Amino acid sequence: MTIIDGKKISDEIKLEIKTEVDELLAKGYKRPHLAAVLVGNDGGSITYVNHKVKACEQVGFKSTLIKFNDNITQHELLECVKKLNNDSDIDGFIVQLPLPVHIAECVIIEAIDPKKDVDGFHPENFGRMSIGLPSFVSATPFGIVELLKRYKIPTNGKHCVVLGRSNIVGRPISILMSQKGIDATVTVAHSRTENLAEVCKSADILIAAIGSSEFVKANMVKEGAVVIDVGTTRIKSETTSCWKLYGDVKFDEVAPKCSFITPVPGGVGPMTIVSLLRNTLLAAKNKKCL
Amino acid sequence: MTIIDGKKISDEIKLEIKTEVDELLAKGYKRPHLAAVLVGNDGGSITYVNHKVKACEQVGFKSTLIKFNDNITQHELLECVKKLNNDSDIDGFIVQLPLPVHIAECVIIEAIDPKKDVDGFHPENFGRMSIGLPSFVSATPFGIVELLKRYKIPTNGKHCVVLGRSNIVGRPISILMSQKGIDATVTVAHSRTENLAEVCKSADILIAAIGSSEFVKANMVKEGAVVIDVGTTRIKSETTSCWKLYGDVKFDEVAPKCSFITPVPGGVGPMTIVSLLRNTLLAAKNKKCL
Repeated sequence: MTIIDGKKISDEIKLEIKTEVDELLAKGYKRPHLAAVLVGNDGGSITYVNHKVKACEQVGFKSTLIKFNDNITQHELLECVKKLNNDSDIDGFIVQLPLPVHIAECVIIEAIDPKKDVDGFHPENFGRMSIGLPSFVSATPFGIVELLKRYKIPTNGKHCVVLGRSNIVGRPISILMSQKGIDATVTVAHSRTENLAEVCKSADILIAAIGSSEFVKANMVKEGAVVIDVGTTRIKSETTSCWKLYGDVKFDEVAPKCSFITPVPGGVGPMTIVSLLRNTLLAAKNKKCL
Repeated sequence: MTIIDGKKISDEIKLEIKTEVDELLAKGYKRPHLAAVLVGNDGGSITYVNHKVKACEQVGFKSTLIKFNDNITQHELLECVKKLNNDSDIDGFIVQLPLPVHIAECVIIEAIDPKKDVDGFHPENFGRMSIGLPSFVSATPFGIVELLKRYKIPTNGKHCVVLGRSNIVGRPISILMSQKGIDATVTVAHSRTENLAEVCKSADILIAAIGSSEFVKANMVKEGAVVIDVGTTRIKSETTSCWKLYGDVKFDEVAPKCSFITPVPGGVGPMTIVSLLRNTLLAAKNKKCL
C-alpha cells in the first residue's frame, strides 16, 4: 500500500512552474500576475487567500490582494470584476467564495472574462473542459488527475466510481476521468444511489467527494483499490480545543486494503493551489501568444 | 414490454409549443423566428434542414433558410454568424453540421451568441447545462429525458449506463441523467471499458449511443431493463437498393427482455427536432423578458 504524498508532488510542480517563470523572465516577458478578491472577514477565506498569495510569491508571480468589507454591493463587486477584466497587467484573477448572501455568486462568476477565470468556475470554462477543449480546469479535479498521473496509476478501462456530484469536484472529475487519454469507465454515485456500498466496492479507483466525514468504510472498498479522498470536514476536537480535519474515508480501516490512498490532510489538499498557479501561468502564456 | 413511441410524443410536444406560440401572438408578441444556415450540398444535411424548417411552420414559427456554396470561406461564414447574432428579429439560429473541412466547426460554434445558440453546442451552454443552470440543452439528450419523463419511467437511484461519450449525446445525457431531479446513478462506458457486456448488463436504464449498428445483444441487457437506442447507422439495403436505418441495439432479440425500449426509427429520432423548437421558443420568451 502506497500513501500518495500530495505535499511532495505539489512542491515538485511549484518548482516546475518557478523554472518556467524564470525562463519567461529571462526571455524578457513580464511576470505572471494573479489578483485575488476577498470579501468580508471569513476566517477560512482569509487563510485560503493568504496561502494563494504566498504560493504566488514562491513561484515568482506578482500577486495583488483586493479586500472589501462584506457590505459591498453586488454592483460594486461587478465593477471591480470589470476593472480586473480590463487590466492588461493582470493575467488571471479569482473571487474567493463564499460571498455574502446578498451577492449572487453565479452573477459574479459569469462576469469574469473566461480568459482570466483561473479558478475555472465560469460556465464557458466548464463547458470547454467538458467537451475536451483547452480550458482552465478547476483546482481539485486538476489536482486529482495530476496525482494519478505522477504516481503512474493505470486508468485506461478501469472502473472509477466518483462519490458525489458537486459542480466543483464530483461532476468535473467524473468528466475528466472518462475523457480520451484517461479512459476510465466512470460511475457517478451520490446520496440517491441504490446499493451505494456495492457500487463503491466495484471501483478500481474510488474518488470520495461526498463531504461526509469517514463515510467510506472498509466494507465499501475492493481489495487493491486506489482511493482518493477529497473530504475536508473540520470537526472541533474537544481534547485539544482546536479543529481536526477529517476526510470522507475512514483511513485506518480502508488504507490496508488499498494499493494507493491519499491521506487527509496531505493528499488532495496541497494540490489545489497548484492548479491555480498552473492556470495563471497558462493565462500569462496565452496572452503572450496573442 | 412497451415500445416507446417517439413520433407520438414529439407530435404532442409540437402541439404544446404551437399552443404557446398562439398565446404569445394573442398577447401581441412577435412570432418566434429560427434561422438555419446550410453550407454545401450534403444530402443528409439538406434533408435535416428541410425537416427543421417544416417543423417551424407546424408550430407557427417564422423560419429563414440561408444557403451557401461549400466554397464559402470561414471568414464569410463568421460574418454571417455575426449578422445573425445582431439581427434582433431572429431569436435563435443553427449552423447545420458537418461543415466543409476547410472551416473549423468549433470556431463557428464559439462565434454564435450563446443566447441564440438553440442547438446548445456552444461551450457556454454546455457548461451551464453541466452545472445545472438554465441553458439550451442539445437535441438528443433533451429528447431522451423527455421520453423518460412522459413515459413516467423511474430514474431516481436507478443505474443508468450510457454507452458512448460523444460531446453531442453520450457526455451530455450522462450529465443530465445524474442531475438533481433525475437522480440516476450514471456510468459512462465506451470503447476502452473493461467487461463492457457485464457493465451494460448491470443497467436498469441502458442508453446506447456508440454508433455501431446492432452492437447491443440480448446477453448485454438485464431482464426488465429500459433500453434507449440512439443509433442511426444508414446501411444500403441490397434487395431494395435504398438505405435502411439501424440502431445500436439488436432490437428483435433485446426487446423481449425489456420493460421499455425505443425503436429505430421512430424512437429518439423524432424527438430531436422538438428540442430545437423548444429552445427557439425559450429564446424568444427570454428576449421578451429582457
